[in-house]
Amino acid sequence: MKKYVLKAGSTSLESLVIIECDEPKVKPGEVLIRVHACSLNFRDQAVVTGNYFGGVLTEDTVPLSDGAGEVVAVGDGVTEFKAGDRVAGLFFQNWHDGPPNPAAGAALGASGCNGMLAEYVALPERGVVKIADSLSYEEAATLPCAGVTAWNALMCGRNPIKVGDCVCVLGTGGVSMLALGIAHAAGAHVVVTSSSDEKLERAKKLGASGFVNYRNTPQWGPEAAAASNKGGADVVVEVGGAGTLAQSMQAVNFNGEIALIGVLTRDGDTTPHPLMMKGSSIRGIFVGNKTMARDLAAAIDVNGMKPAVDKVFPFKEAAEAYRYQTRGAFGKVVIRV
Amino acid sequence: MKKYVLKAGSTSLESLVIIECDEPKVKPGEVLIRVHACSLNFRDQAVVTGNYFGGVLTEDTVPLSDGAGEVVAVGDGVTEFKAGDRVAGLFFQNWHDGPPNPAAGAALGASGCNGMLAEYVALPERGVVKIADSLSYEEAATLPCAGVTAWNALMCGRNPIKVGDCVCVLGTGGVSMLALGIAHAAGAHVVVTSSSDEKLERAKKLGASGFVNYRNTPQWGPEAAAASNKGGADVVVEVGGAGTLAQSMQAVNFNGEIALIGVLTRDGDTTPHPLMMKGSSIRGIFVGNKTMARDLAAAIDVNGMKPAVDKVFPFKEAAEAYRYQTRGAFGKVVIRV
Amino acid sequence: MKKYVLKAGSTSLESLVIIECDEPKVKPGEVLIRVHACSLNFRDQAVVTGNYFGGVLTEDTVPLSDGAGEVVAVGDGVTEFKAGDRVAGLFFQNWHDGPPNPAAGAALGASGCNGMLAEYVALPERGVVKIADSLSYEEAATLPCAGVTAWNALMCGRNPIKVGDCVCVLGTGGVSMLALGIAHAAGAHVVVTSSSDEKLERAKKLGASGFVNYRNTPQWGPEAAAASNKGGADVVVEVGGAGTLAQSMQAVNFNGEIALIGVLTRDGDTTPHPLMMKGSSIRGIFVGNKTMARDLAAAIDVNGMKPAVDKVFPFKEAAEAYRYQTRGAFGKVVIRV
Amino acid sequence: MKKYVLKAGSTSLESLVIIECDEPKVKPGEVLIRVHACSLNFRDQAVVTGNYFGGVLTEDTVPLSDGAGEVVAVGDGVTEFKAGDRVAGLFFQNWHDGPPNPAAGAALGASGCNGMLAEYVALPERGVVKIADSLSYEEAATLPCAGVTAWNALMCGRNPIKVGDCVCVLGTGGVSMLALGIAHAAGAHVVVTSSSDEKLERAKKLGASGFVNYRNTPQWGPEAAAASNKGGADVVVEVGGAGTLAQSMQAVNFNGEIALIGVLTRDGDTTPHPLMMKGSSIRGIFVGNKTMARDLAAAIDVNGMKPAVDKVFPFKEAAEAYRYQTRGAFGKVVIRV
Repeated sequence: MKKYVLKAGSTSLESLVIIECDEPKVKPGEVLIRVHACSLNFRDQAVVTGNYFGGVLTEDTVPLSDGAGEVVAVGDGVTEFKAGDRVAGLFFQNWHDGPPNPAAGAALGASGCNGMLAEYVALPERGVVKIADSLSYEEAATLPCAGVTAWNALMCGRNPIKVGDCVCVLGTGGVSMLALGIAHAAGAHVVVTSSSDEKLERAKKLGASGFVNYRNTPQWGPEAAAASNKGGADVVVEVGGAGTLAQSMQAVNFNGEIALIGVLTRDGDTTPHPLMMKGSSIRGIFVGNKTMARDLAAAIDVNGMKPAVDKVFPFKEAAEAYRYQTRGAFGKVVIRV
Repeated sequence: MKKYVLKAGSTSLESLVIIECDEPKVKPGEVLIRVHACSLNFRDQAVVTGNYFGGVLTEDTVPLSDGAGEVVAVGDGVTEFKAGDRVAGLFFQNWHDGPPNPAAGAALGASGCNGMLAEYVALPERGVVKIADSLSYEEAATLPCAGVTAWNALMCGRNPIKVGDCVCVLGTGGVSMLALGIAHAAGAHVVVTSSSDEKLERAKKLGASGFVNYRNTPQWGPEAAAASNKGGADVVVEVGGAGTLAQSMQAVNFNGEIALIGVLTRDGDTTPHPLMMKGSSIRGIFVGNKTMARDLAAAIDVNGMKPAVDKVFPFKEAAEAYRYQTRGAFGKVVIRV
Repeated sequence: MKKYVLKAGSTSLESLVIIECDEPKVKPGEVLIRVHACSLNFRDQAVVTGNYFGGVLTEDTVPLSDGAGEVVAVGDGVTEFKAGDRVAGLFFQNWHDGPPNPAAGAALGASGCNGMLAEYVALPERGVVKIADSLSYEEAATLPCAGVTAWNALMCGRNPIKVGDCVCVLGTGGVSMLALGIAHAAGAHVVVTSSSDEKLERAKKLGASGFVNYRNTPQWGPEAAAASNKGGADVVVEVGGAGTLAQSMQAVNFNGEIALIGVLTRDGDTTPHPLMMKGSSIRGIFVGNKTMARDLAAAIDVNGMKPAVDKVFPFKEAAEAYRYQTRGAFGKVVIRV
Repeated sequence: MKKYVLKAGSTSLESLVIIECDEPKVKPGEVLIRVHACSLNFRDQAVVTGNYFGGVLTEDTVPLSDGAGEVVAVGDGVTEFKAGDRVAGLFFQNWHDGPPNPAAGAALGASGCNGMLAEYVALPERGVVKIADSLSYEEAATLPCAGVTAWNALMCGRNPIKVGDCVCVLGTGGVSMLALGIAHAAGAHVVVTSSSDEKLERAKKLGASGFVNYRNTPQWGPEAAAASNKGGADVVVEVGGAGTLAQSMQAVNFNGEIALIGVLTRDGDTTPHPLMMKGSSIRGIFVGNKTMARDLAAAIDVNGMKPAVDKVFPFKEAAEAYRYQTRGAFGKVVIRV
């Protein structure tokens, strides 16, 4: 079998190499998966450059948290899966249910935990989840990090979104377009921001109903609040980080929540005092748990949502997929394995 | 102006009479409404027959809790409304927000509180709410009792429904069809029961995706659970009462809730022990508050839901509307005023 | 080592025998516990008489779900425990967190799953939890079933009890006295019912502040509501079942919840219509999960609560402990192992 | 009667004058209160100096939001109160129940809304609440702003505190000591920070069980987390503002919440990225609603909590009370009227 590894000490894509190795043997409690597709997240770029949690990789590591495939064998004691099941790995291998906690365990595809960019992967049963019946492997591979993050942001906060609420998503990247899909299926009014009218138009086709071009309106917060048709967005999916937070605090409604996902920008006015008058919150989001992954799959099957896949690359062009993503994709970038 | 009254001591529709009277004068804090449409609920039948809470009417009373119209004048101190606003009355005149409480106040159209079946009605500001922009008066008139009840049942329990959940509605009456509309807009999978395949077909057009004919399957609970595509319905909208509760306890999912609305049937096995194994609940529902009415209107405007109106009667045929409803309408029966 | 078994087909205590056997070998993922104390629940009586779920035992089974002891060895891969840890088994061996679900797994001490009445017991790591530092083994052994049930009833419903709320507990048995302890520590006003003024007096010493003697007042519901000093109890810990439910529906407050735990009585008026006017709920409770067990231990350590232990029996008098419990203990009956 | 007014344009205490005037006439819907005690909050200092919301006062204004007294008359239509009732005014005159919203109305004692520092005050019925039976007027006067704020912070967030949780309060001012009292009564472990070991000792007498002297440990966040005896505080009562937020983010637990109350400091590192790894939140708090005031009173009556009153000043020494508070009180500063 073939797999990619990022070499220890990696600071650029030159460290990404494809190697030949034996198939993993399935141990007790494990599930062996023939991976069919993987997807990229921005954290995967940070792993490449040595800027992810923990710094540069200290050993050769298979990259990517997100992959979907077919179970080909199960170890002793496995009860949840059988050969033939369509599954994905979980971002956190040991966070089954309940709130965030320090025992969530390793995150796939980063220091100390091999990821999914391989033809075969063996994972503990608890770190695997069935994918939605209605999705292809390419589509399902977009969800373990970005989809679960979007679900957590919208559905697991102080006030899970309900039909008629307003959601504001920042930009048209992977998490934002998945959040748009979920929020639209949930009967919410979705306001999208972008620097491109053409991307806003594509978001409209996915169900967005409010639009702000932040190139035209750099102080876009009040405009997003106006586009909410109420006092502001009940949830703001904040993928930008410090640089956009001040505008998000303008965009959020009374009693609303800013789901803080992104660290794309590090500088900006982060004074949280605007939250006080409105009784609003900022909640930190770090992907999510197995129950969220299951609930997302159920929501997809009931509603026929399709993740926005920007482009699919063949296995041998994995490096090109990384480069393509850095140029700003609409939705997700996928690698077929 | 004209209005209907049910005579004190009413036990049948023969006590329903139309009379001519002066328009009400708007007092401080009040809103004067030109009513354009009313709708009927089963409780209105019980008021006619003297079987509603408190027994037979002790004084002549304008019937019907549900009516929508246009504000034509406001009294001193009114700040929330102005002439021209499109509004409806609230079922409970004094339940603004928060949980059920003993101070909810009088219910329109029953003992001690005149209702909406009149050309002009004056209500306290707090007992009035704006209707959805996207609805006609006939459509909006279906919501104050049945729509708010459905919203409360689905959205205000232990686990408000979320995208991908399953809702089971019993029959195709007013509350059930409104619950279907809300649940479908919220991205839920909706299972409908009926004694008529033709009505199931009509429910399918409104978004239902699971179907049980309880004439064919009197023990319909397990079949409804099977139609949920998961362990059972996350919310069962129980409009039947004691006679259907045992089946509802079969239909409900682990951790699910039976929203107990109906008292149509009084006999049946109500032993709640089946709730224990599943950790499920029965929650009593008695319409809802002003915030629920507002949230429902917002959900309608965002999603373009249309209440199912079975038939509209002219003002002078109000008694015929009552009779029509007792024969089993699909959705709501409306009187144009 | 010694252990008790209930013989297959047991319908009485005559089937309870003590036998000599080898210590269990700890397998990968397992924890070996030297049990120091066990406690009895009413369900254990039902197991003896063949009336528990699944009927009479189909094979010889070690009884009792509740036991606490010291870890003496751990198998490969165990990370949560080490030798010397003070632990208890969990009632449900596979319900870690989150809501009730069908995968909770076997319940200790019933058909198909050996229990804790043995000197040594090996359990999977996931089915074990640390006990409160401030409790003895005898005290900690009272919690896995009755304590977690009480916690679930009070803290995991629609409105977890908060400081200043009112809780009503029925009688002075194990679950009720543990619920009293938790509710009192949580700053709630606790109303206790009993047929004995002497037991009410003992409950007062444990923190109860409202009292109803149901022998004097068989229709005790309204009296319990009056003793709440508000509209009724926010949570009623309903250990009686069908025979007491009608009174519990009188005792419960607007928006309150009846935590349905008991099946001691099977006959009675269970019509749930009184829930409707008050917007109240009945929620089925079936013990609880590992997170609840942990939260309970934390609450005990912070507040110095002590479970009410009625009497401690030596290991060789286990049968006598069963008999003693059936005569109506105040709090819990314990067996030292 | 006598009352104090702050003159329009006030920037210092020299603008605080006492004047003689007629008693207010009670209007329909109003309650006339003979005020017996008032208390001070830091926002009242900001009103004096012209630094509160809206800047300097544009007209003469009776100061102070917090006052308690006896109802001496009620206007037409008032149903909730009668002469002789012991009551307090609400900070927000029009926020009855439910989440924060833009219609909360005027805040007593600031621009456009006369406050409580007067012998007689007339308020709308909806802006008044009964005080706890077990408190004196002096004690009850400490609650409308600081007590309701503390209640909101602890009990109305994403995870209302429960028995066994950990709460961290910053310093020993009014809100912090009221939060300590509530949290202790609720069975929480309370960690207090102070620059003074003597104040920490006084907090211990009020129920605190963890202590951090931030003069000794300027980077006190990790020490507060250690003093939690778990991963951190489940709620941090953040009265400091921007200057302390970075430490609060160290002190807060996984899934915990920082209740953001204070704006005492404006400079500091407010980057919220530390929230992400822990899934924690910052929630803005702006006092609270009438239901919170009622719940607080109930909690006080059930548990016998006593607000920490630092010093009581006579009516004629109101200016001295202001000055005393700025020097750093332990708990609340009260003016007897």
